[in-house]
Amino acid sequence: MRASFARQGAMAHLGAELVRVEPGRVDIAMAYRPELAQQHGFFHAGLVSTIMDTAGGYAGFTLFPLDAAVLTVEFKVNLIAAADGERVVAEGRVIRSGRTLTVCQLDAFVEKAGRRVHCATGVQTLMSVVGRTGVKD
Amino acid sequence: MRASFARQGAMAHLGAELVRVEPGRVDIAMAYRPELAQQHGFFHAGLVSTIMDTAGGYAGFTLFPLDAAVLTVEFKVNLIAAADGERVVAEGRVIRSGRTLTVCQLDAFVEKAGRRVHCATGVQTLMSVVGRTGVKD
Amino acid sequence: MRASFARQGAMAHLGAELVRVEPGRVDIAMAYRPELAQQHGFFHAGLVSTIMDTAGGYAGFTLFPLDAAVLTVEFKVNLIAAADGERVVAEGRVIRSGRTLTVCQLDAFVEKAGRRVHCATGVQTLMSVVGRTGVKD
Amino acid sequence: MRASFARQGAMAHLGAELVRVEPGRVDIAMAYRPELAQQHGFFHAGLVSTIMDTAGGYAGFTLFPLDAAVLTVEFKVNLIAAADGERVVAEGRVIRSGRTLTVCQLDAFVEKAGRRVHCATGVQTLMSVVGRTGVKD
Repeated sequence: MRASFARQGAMAHLGAELVRVEPGRVDIAMAYRPELAQQHGFFHAGLVSTIMDTAGGYAGFTLFPLDAAVLTVEFKVNLIAAADGERVVAEGRVIRSGRTLTVCQLDAFVEKAGRRVHCATGVQTLMSVVGRTGVKD
Repeated sequence: MRASFARQGAMAHLGAELVRVEPGRVDIAMAYRPELAQQHGFFHAGLVSTIMDTAGGYAGFTLFPLDAAVLTVEFKVNLIAAADGERVVAEGRVIRSGRTLTVCQLDAFVEKAGRRVHCATGVQTLMSVVGRTGVKD
Repeated sequence: MRASFARQGAMAHLGAELVRVEPGRVDIAMAYRPELAQQHGFFHAGLVSTIMDTAGGYAGFTLFPLDAAVLTVEFKVNLIAAADGERVVAEGRVIRSGRTLTVCQLDAFVEKAGRRVHCATGVQTLMSVVGRTGVKD
Repeated sequence: MRASFARQGAMAHLGAELVRVEPGRVDIAMAYRPELAQQHGFFHAGLVSTIMDTAGGYAGFTLFPLDAAVLTVEFKVNLIAAADGERVVAEGRVIRSGRTLTVCQLDAFVEKAGRRVHCATGVQTLMSVVGRTGVKD
């Protein structure tokens, strides 16, 4: 998994890092930089969603067979508070693991001056794919 | 709107640009770079979703009063084909415009060797906020 | 499909009927009765969503192999106007058909005194299952 | 709230009942009847979603001002196991309560021969409306 994460240009570009990896649970953190902001200076909701999607994807991947790749089928995110802070941490948690489909709960928390605020929540569907790359079928 | 877009560090960081702005409709394009890729070399689904979210947000914004800010309440995206190509274009379209809430349809298309493939579809809820910044209440 | 629809106790209980069946497109209508209402006398959003889910499921089913069953993996619905009227029609439309997964657009329209109002929109993911019944795996 | 629930023709028609009411948390149960089934004899996913939507709506309502009505803006449900059993219980839980918008987590469990299976999970956005009925604006 760490090798796969390291191959993701997008994660490096966002300065995102794996901060927790357990079976069925992966957390990803991203420190604030102006390049990650929307027009009001908060973390861009799309980028918060990006690390939520990635955290969920890898959480599912921890439970997949070794030869399987992971694809996001869909995800849904509610932005419940402004992502105003120094760091955002996305948590992906498998809530249902199947042979083909896996469902994860996604949550994000923004940290500011020692306070931690729940800023986004969502649900994601993943697909386990063996022997094909990036082909959802 | 163009001023607001230019203030978004995130959009510059992704190399995203406004390619269409009409009342109730905004398109945003992003050219391929390895920094935008997931582990298989395709556009990262989260980043595709990021410009979809932004396209919908600005589509809603075109119909808001001048003193109103736009917040994404939630969005949902289905990734229906691998985002494998040279450029991805996200289209945001208002399908219901209200005083407080606006609903947009979101679609993304990936372009490769002159072919255009519908790679993602979704729905987004926006909130119009007057006189407050980034406070969803 | 009509045999399957007739076996659905739920559809009979709601007074829902198939009003359009084409490859990749199914519409279901439901006439107003107080038993279908929420506390303000409009169609209950959940029941509108129920026929949207069913319309999408059968729309996908029209494109499946004959021996495959259809399961809803997930759906998302935005209620964009009060479902205040004499009849509601749900339209399910396949926007991406795959071997395992199918994605549908869902829309609902409420009819009142000859006017037709778009009252709900959504997206649905279906799974095609061969040789198993109701097992999502 | 109980008066509002009793006015819902839809809840009576489904045989749904309030089984838990606390600030920010409402559970609704529905016993199996063939009229609630889909074509394989399980609870219809749409009807399970209907009581999930209603449980969330009332969970939000417990925290609203007395003169406010509740509207579902949108909801998203993942059906994670077949709803095969004697009774299904939907749990609605407020995870973010605001002046205008409230976000709930939705879960459903199906009971069969003393076993309880998590069969659906989702997220819902509600709107608090004062002085208007069923008008989302």
